[in-house]
Amino acid sequence: MSWGKRAEMIVHEQDPYNAEPPPGLLADAFITPTDVFYSRNHGPIPDLDPETWSLRVDGQVSRPLTLTLDQLQAFEHVTLSATLQCAGNRRADLIRVRDIPGEHPWGRAATSTATWTGVRLRDVLDAAGLDPTLTDGHVAFDAPDVSPIADPPQPYGGSVPLTKARGPEVLLAWAMNGEPLTQVHGAPVRVVVPGYIGARSVKWVQHVTVQPGPSDNYFQATAYRIVPPDADPKHAGPADGISLGPVPVNAAILTPADSSHPPAGRTHISGYAYAGGDRTVARVDVSADDGATWTQAELTHSDDRWTWTTWTLDLDLDLEPGRHVLAVRAWDNTGAQQPQSPEAVWNPKGYANTSWDRLQLDVV
Amino acid sequence: MSWGKRAEMIVHEQDPYNAEPPPGLLADAFITPTDVFYSRNHGPIPDLDPETWSLRVDGQVSRPLTLTLDQLQAFEHVTLSATLQCAGNRRADLIRVRDIPGEHPWGRAATSTATWTGVRLRDVLDAAGLDPTLTDGHVAFDAPDVSPIADPPQPYGGSVPLTKARGPEVLLAWAMNGEPLTQVHGAPVRVVVPGYIGARSVKWVQHVTVQPGPSDNYFQATAYRIVPPDADPKHAGPADGISLGPVPVNAAILTPADSSHPPAGRTHISGYAYAGGDRTVARVDVSADDGATWTQAELTHSDDRWTWTTWTLDLDLDLEPGRHVLAVRAWDNTGAQQPQSPEAVWNPKGYANTSWDRLQLDVV
Repeated sequence: MSWGKRAEMIVHEQDPYNAEPPPGLLADAFITPTDVFYSRNHGPIPDLDPETWSLRVDGQVSRPLTLTLDQLQAFEHVTLSATLQCAGNRRADLIRVRDIPGEHPWGRAATSTATWTGVRLRDVLDAAGLDPTLTDGHVAFDAPDVSPIADPPQPYGGSVPLTKARGPEVLLAWAMNGEPLTQVHGAPVRVVVPGYIGARSVKWVQHVTVQPGPSDNYFQATAYRIVPPDADPKHAGPADGISLGPVPVNAAILTPADSSHPPAGRTHISGYAYAGGDRTVARVDVSADDGATWTQAELTHSDDRWTWTTWTLDLDLDLEPGRHVLAVRAWDNTGAQQPQSPEAVWNPKGYANTSWDRLQLDVV
Repeated sequence: MSWGKRAEMIVHEQDPYNAEPPPGLLADAFITPTDVFYSRNHGPIPDLDPETWSLRVDGQVSRPLTLTLDQLQAFEHVTLSATLQCAGNRRADLIRVRDIPGEHPWGRAATSTATWTGVRLRDVLDAAGLDPTLTDGHVAFDAPDVSPIADPPQPYGGSVPLTKARGPEVLLAWAMNGEPLTQVHGAPVRVVVPGYIGARSVKWVQHVTVQPGPSDNYFQATAYRIVPPDADPKHAGPADGISLGPVPVNAAILTPADSSHPPAGRTHISGYAYAGGDRTVARVDVSADDGATWTQAELTHSDDRWTWTTWTLDLDLDLEPGRHVLAVRAWDNTGAQQPQSPEAVWNPKGYANTSWDRLQLDVV
């Protein structure tokens, strides 16, 4: 099964399907074509019938609801662009520091941007009688895809804080890039939580619960945590490590390709930078000498709060023959910048590689 | 004038008074005593009479107000702990990379935490008839201290986005650590904007304006910006660089002292870590070998959203005789970590030194 994706996709696992495009396919396009958008799955891809699908909304609400797709689509429609980024994006560079058994070696392309159409989660929660004065709490999402990775095996789920769930940007979406969601992207309806790690944008969502604490699902309580280097991630619990949510500032080079041989002279360099939460990317610097000197790149969408910005730079490389390191780093709008080395951010599950992205150029 | 501060303060400038405590005086106390709290001033310290002081609230509000101190204190009182951090905190380490003429060489103690008592800014804005549906916009603060640093010389001012101004944590405060504000800390009333650089917590506030854009005051439009390394900061404008607001994650070692000679064996190491915006500090690591290996410190207040956390670690140093580098780095609750080197974050005005804090130990 190629799930509607291009033949060039780098498939880390066939069943369940886990794939990202070669970096060059992401380059220069602000909106990622659906057939190139990365796909991260934890269990067999559900095949749900939109005619019989329904969404249960319950928990700390006064009027629990069950909505058919038609009923969901009766709420006000919203279309917005948002980037999703896998928490394991750029794990390959962490694996080069120290092996991370059992996790996919995602490259720099487990990040993509689409235009999503759906309804605001908050409108549905309001219809279910969510107390507008409730501020503490979380909203949990459950899906039917049973993951054998989880201990014990269980359907996929996750949650976000209620304050985030109320944001106008958080959607229950049925369309991606103007077309109905494909099966592999969560048809008929998925959650889209802009600014948060992709894991919280639960696909094939069937159940939304307002509750006092975070989801106790394996993928919220145990996985998607930065645990200390010497910890056993299989036994991490809610109190351990850093539970990932908003995405810290990050950047990657998409062209030229790693280990390529660019011609001497002016070289077109391009990539993306992304800051989650409510932050934006304020500046991107490129270095052709592994960080000794930097040149600022041009940003295309630095004010977009829920998307990446793409960036470009035409640089006179004029490098001596031999191997050179091209590096990129981004600053967010608070002045936060990325750590320098993958060694500094290595963690047992290989999440959140925010170190400067580097690739090698072989000049002949 | 010592402005009620201890004799040990490190005074960077006498007039106007700019001073920070020696790091050891900040150590281990979660709430900083007022006589130790750093003080950053841009012009002569105003001497305002609380009997005649008033606050004007105008701009995009339907019922502009002028409030006396008694009238301000008729709003609901709020007491909360919040950290303020100067944007120039730890500039001294940037100056060692490359000189930054005309700016004070602040050490690691231009950061302090107090308990503030006042009223919520949003309650006052609501009383002035702020449209509750207005979401775009900024709230500007003006003070009477005329700063000769500004070009042209002008009274001090600044602004924050309206969404931030509406936060329940943003105060118009008249008390600090249970006592009326001292003159040097803004008596009779100052703004306290937790999570933002100290520059936005305008002292001696006299005027609050709701307006479409950020303040055009020199200290908002030109200063407090990270401009590119080759830019002339004196001519930076609203479109240039990164205008500082929420504080990125940072940490510092307060004990032992820099260049000290700790005894062999178990050494008590302590300091603070702070993440602004709505982020918290999730983890602090200490290294006795300049970053080759790390040990996690104990955090005292990692869940406090508007304050630093203090941290401690008892480490068996057992170092060979010679010079060693002790380093600290923090992670925020999104997994963002600090850049490694001051070279990576150097900027012409020396703001936001978020690099790992390092000090030297001389083992004899």
